[in-house]
Amino acid sequence: MQSIDRITPDDLPAFARGCGVLGTGGGGSVDSGLLAAAHALAEYGDVPVVPLDRIAADGLVLPLSGIGAPTVSHEMPMSGEEPVLIAAEVERIFGRPVSAVMASEIGGSNGVGAVAWAARLGLPLVDADGMGRAFPEVQMVSQNVAGLPVNLIVLADVQGNLTTLRPVDGPWSEAIARAVTVACGGSALMADYVLTGAELRGAVVEGSVSSALRIGRTVAESGEPVKALVELLQATTLLTGKVVDVERRTGGGFVRGSLILDGTGADRGRMLRVEIQNENLVAFEDGRVRACVPDLITVVDVETADAVSTESLRYGQRVTVLSWPCDPLWRTPRGLEIAGPRAFGYDLDYTPVEHLR
Amino acid sequence: MQSIDRITPDDLPAFARGCGVLGTGGGGSVDSGLLAAAHALAEYGDVPVVPLDRIAADGLVLPLSGIGAPTVSHEMPMSGEEPVLIAAEVERIFGRPVSAVMASEIGGSNGVGAVAWAARLGLPLVDADGMGRAFPEVQMVSQNVAGLPVNLIVLADVQGNLTTLRPVDGPWSEAIARAVTVACGGSALMADYVLTGAELRGAVVEGSVSSALRIGRTVAESGEPVKALVELLQATTLLTGKVVDVERRTGGGFVRGSLILDGTGADRGRMLRVEIQNENLVAFEDGRVRACVPDLITVVDVETADAVSTESLRYGQRVTVLSWPCDPLWRTPRGLEIAGPRAFGYDLDYTPVEHLR
Repeated sequence: MQSIDRITPDDLPAFARGCGVLGTGGGGSVDSGLLAAAHALAEYGDVPVVPLDRIAADGLVLPLSGIGAPTVSHEMPMSGEEPVLIAAEVERIFGRPVSAVMASEIGGSNGVGAVAWAARLGLPLVDADGMGRAFPEVQMVSQNVAGLPVNLIVLADVQGNLTTLRPVDGPWSEAIARAVTVACGGSALMADYVLTGAELRGAVVEGSVSSALRIGRTVAESGEPVKALVELLQATTLLTGKVVDVERRTGGGFVRGSLILDGTGADRGRMLRVEIQNENLVAFEDGRVRACVPDLITVVDVETADAVSTESLRYGQRVTVLSWPCDPLWRTPRGLEIAGPRAFGYDLDYTPVEHLR
Repeated sequence: MQSIDRITPDDLPAFARGCGVLGTGGGGSVDSGLLAAAHALAEYGDVPVVPLDRIAADGLVLPLSGIGAPTVSHEMPMSGEEPVLIAAEVERIFGRPVSAVMASEIGGSNGVGAVAWAARLGLPLVDADGMGRAFPEVQMVSQNVAGLPVNLIVLADVQGNLTTLRPVDGPWSEAIARAVTVACGGSALMADYVLTGAELRGAVVEGSVSSALRIGRTVAESGEPVKALVELLQATTLLTGKVVDVERRTGGGFVRGSLILDGTGADRGRMLRVEIQNENLVAFEDGRVRACVPDLITVVDVETADAVSTESLRYGQRVTVLSWPCDPLWRTPRGLEIAGPRAFGYDLDYTPVEHLR
């Protein structure tokens, strides 16, 4: 598979589409990230993309993501200076410069936003992320699956408040970072697992940036976008139909809810229910699980194959729900402990989507 | 007035009583602080007490206090290692050792607790504090009245979580620190306004430690403790009577409520209502203000003159409510803006207690 060496303004629309597909409904709407990235590239120039093995063993990588309910961040843009505040704090703590930016989560706005943050800092973007998708909670990252300690979390908000956490473990990092985010108005930029190139090897999902761009280009260039997407991702089509019910509530720094689809065409007479915590978590049909976390579940427009994010779901949309396998690290016992169905309160065992019918 | 040069185990009971009187109902029950201080002095030895003018101009002073609703901290003791975590973070940030500890708030458990924290760190305690009393919110400190910036807030909890804030202003420092405290279980140790000896001159209430000890000794040594206290403090006696109603609710990191007293003896037929946010804020009689923040209002036992803290108020207690003038810095326009009645949501102008009848 071909990888890329830089992101230019021309790449952004396809890259954003790919991030949307990998967002499983969450990670924030790609529109706000796309706008920020377009402005940043215009002002600061193209962003070089480098594979992790090109980062020096002791080079500091700054993984960044927005934190907060996407329904909030959608309404509350960043100032643009958050990455500068965070990088300055990290460089002060480590006593040396940051070498590169990485998306903590490639899915949704956080994937395309990483281009803006790297451009603002004048740093390359690592072709990797901490999820290979989007997840709602701070501790749900590959670095945690790999057993690395949450050494440091740095949060900056639009007002300029800077908060640095040294939590004792992953669940505490989530509890405290989420409380800070809510206190700051519901949305913040966050760095976590600030580690060196050597430490991150084997502990991240490599090739995510190239993968998102490839997905977006495939969709953009095909006359049958949904079909092309299914082939590229080796995805299972869970249902094609119409959105007949959307329930969402925002609180505690998350948006939670569910989505009900009524099948159309070949799927007439079938219904699918998708449950959501920022991201799409589990898809049920007649009480049976059709797909569940950590496998990816994305709702796409039936014509364009554009991902429909949690905050833009609405009654009457014609959509197809796709599911495909997550990165293998999430299927390990520790990966499932951190982001399997039980980590979200579901009393069910994980079954890979390709084994569910 | 005589000042002291060290605190020994023998001084602790009187010192704790004095901190209780200065606590205006809040700052945490002195019992938990007294226990912690007694243990710390037994393990680490006496704590030298030094006036601020003996701290080197560039000597770093670490102001410490517990943060959280006193009803919570009462039930959730600290680990004892919180000051060590905080001092290590501060020394890392400033690149040099801390010279002394200061109580952020002399009133209540936070005054006597400062002895424990200084002992644990093997550092002297500055004979000063940031209030001359107790106040419920982070920004309500003399350093803020003096116009010093909230450069840094460091919080440590009983689990070992460490959080460092660089807030843009006082209200944000309160909002974020409070949210972190609630997320950490409702109680934490906090350093704020970490500044040098030179910066703190004129920006703190000097002599607070000596003052608390003098109050405690006066009460302990008198055959008529309440009378002795009134004379020492030049206090106004608002009412002597019986607690007939106590309303308290704990939420958002505070305890709020009110207290109603029915006069006895010479005060028979009169009633007093005291409103509370951790501390006693305003005393009303027949709709008239008898005393209000920032002046001190303390409920004391009618026999022993021991302060009755917010969390130990109960029906039927026989008490006297005293009020006396706050430190002059709180009576300046900026002092009243930060901690006058309007800062607590009361639509009333401040009148010094000695002018109210």
